[in-house]
Amino acid sequence: MDHFADRLVAALREKHNPVCVGLDPRWPSLPLEIRRRHDDGTLAGMARGFEEFCCRVLDVVAPLVPVVKPQSAFFEACGPAGLLALQAVLARARRLGLVSILDGKRNDIAATAAAYADAAFAGTPVGDTVEPVWNADALTVNPYLGRDAVEPFVKSARGSGRGVFVLVRTSNPGAGQFQDLVCEGQPLYQHVARAVSAWAQECQGKCGYGDVAAVVGATYPAELSVLRHLMPNVFFLLPGYGAQGATAVDAAPAFQADGLGALVNSSRGILFCYPPEARDWEQSVQAATRAMIADLAQHTSSGRLA
Amino acid sequence: MDHFADRLVAALREKHNPVCVGLDPRWPSLPLEIRRRHDDGTLAGMARGFEEFCCRVLDVVAPLVPVVKPQSAFFEACGPAGLLALQAVLARARRLGLVSILDGKRNDIAATAAAYADAAFAGTPVGDTVEPVWNADALTVNPYLGRDAVEPFVKSARGSGRGVFVLVRTSNPGAGQFQDLVCEGQPLYQHVARAVSAWAQECQGKCGYGDVAAVVGATYPAELSVLRHLMPNVFFLLPGYGAQGATAVDAAPAFQADGLGALVNSSRGILFCYPPEARDWEQSVQAATRAMIADLAQHTSSGRLA
Repeated sequence: MDHFADRLVAALREKHNPVCVGLDPRWPSLPLEIRRRHDDGTLAGMARGFEEFCCRVLDVVAPLVPVVKPQSAFFEACGPAGLLALQAVLARARRLGLVSILDGKRNDIAATAAAYADAAFAGTPVGDTVEPVWNADALTVNPYLGRDAVEPFVKSARGSGRGVFVLVRTSNPGAGQFQDLVCEGQPLYQHVARAVSAWAQECQGKCGYGDVAAVVGATYPAELSVLRHLMPNVFFLLPGYGAQGATAVDAAPAFQADGLGALVNSSRGILFCYPPEARDWEQSVQAATRAMIADLAQHTSSGRLA
Repeated sequence: MDHFADRLVAALREKHNPVCVGLDPRWPSLPLEIRRRHDDGTLAGMARGFEEFCCRVLDVVAPLVPVVKPQSAFFEACGPAGLLALQAVLARARRLGLVSILDGKRNDIAATAAAYADAAFAGTPVGDTVEPVWNADALTVNPYLGRDAVEPFVKSARGSGRGVFVLVRTSNPGAGQFQDLVCEGQPLYQHVARAVSAWAQECQGKCGYGDVAAVVGATYPAELSVLRHLMPNVFFLLPGYGAQGATAVDAAPAFQADGLGALVNSSRGILFCYPPEARDWEQSVQAATRAMIADLAQHTSSGRLA
């Protein structure tokens, strides 16, 4: 498979925008028609509802956006049946030509980290073959455990043309409790940023970006400029747009002049932009996606992807 | 259910030792008799092998030790079938009266963190009921995202008599890259330790320990004493004993004078302490468990639990 960053850039150029649709299915917010069809009081029924909902969202957004990001927690909450649904959703994203980022925020050491990574990417070795598990294009990873804990993820990704998105600065209100602590003259998240930049430089695609990327909350715009400067060859994934309060103007500093360099994620703002009883909810999802694309094109350099 | 720490202390007193057996099934290390029975070239076959192996290990160690820690990565590596096996292993641990710590190192924010937590503990709400998913007694959690990202785990645990083990100082060689950075005069891991201590003090059991505990690598013994002092009401889970190089002497500073305060984990050193072709591997597992109990009793205050 081609280098992850080259595939990502090709997808952004093909769709002319940097939107990532987050697939965070929440049962109480799902369209009533879907809940009614699958509600049998079991986790398996909930999982089938999640699968139908996410696959229909994928069908709506696939012609419009380059990237989707399923949130593993909501699928895991349905147990093994939910993880079958996650597999189906990721497989459909792949068939539709979307780049997928599995949002698992995984982290561990040595062979354990490698087990998570192989599952996320090329698959788990079984005898002489490798069996795909999630088969995602990228995975989010938590860096707290340090270099040798992130490297098994990077190695596995690199071996199969996939990418690793390392949490640098998260979008939540309390993110700063540890991430903002000043160590040797710089906040912790900047130390993480430097490590991410070094990992990214080890293996750059033809586009100049590395296969290690950064998660940086759009809810902290002042920090985005600093981080853009610290990580010139790193793609950013920006959570926090929309429901979490960040605007396109807030996201703007993450972009390079040519419109590349950042993905902006929206989950609830696209998935649940209608009342549950709406029958034409897919039209609302489509309209919200188009509105987000236009908003970003107006207020960030992403308009130059057009 | 009773307070998590009271249940944990009762289990340690009943078994007279602080051993946690880590359930990290790795296909190439499994006894040949199990591999032969389940090897059909599929992840489902591997998952059935993991389930049989872990359940047989549970049967051997349940009369001896208080706590087990399944590593979710190895089950996830088999996909949905692996997670059915994880459910079966956790259910058997519960039936055998063992305290279970699901080692998932989960982390996320707000409703997403709550989804992971509910799945780990009491279960996922479905209509008017709650359906169990993993039903573990405790879960390991990564603190990098800060207070408001850890609190959904703590809240969910507290509501159902479960516990949260927060990564403070991990056992891997590169742990210090970020954890040792000195911020405001103290290394980062000590800032995390103070936060863990505060969380633990919010809800203490009759035994005096909180329902928030700490993961602290036994591979860094000098730091154990400092951390023991910083977190007087916090139980420690110590990875790193045995295969990762830490000894009982290294683990000693984590214990209080009465023999409480710490769990020492061993995974490979117990699970795979025999050649794969061994037929009497369960006797080897039993002997290795007994040897570890004796080693800890000799070199730490845990002998006082006897």
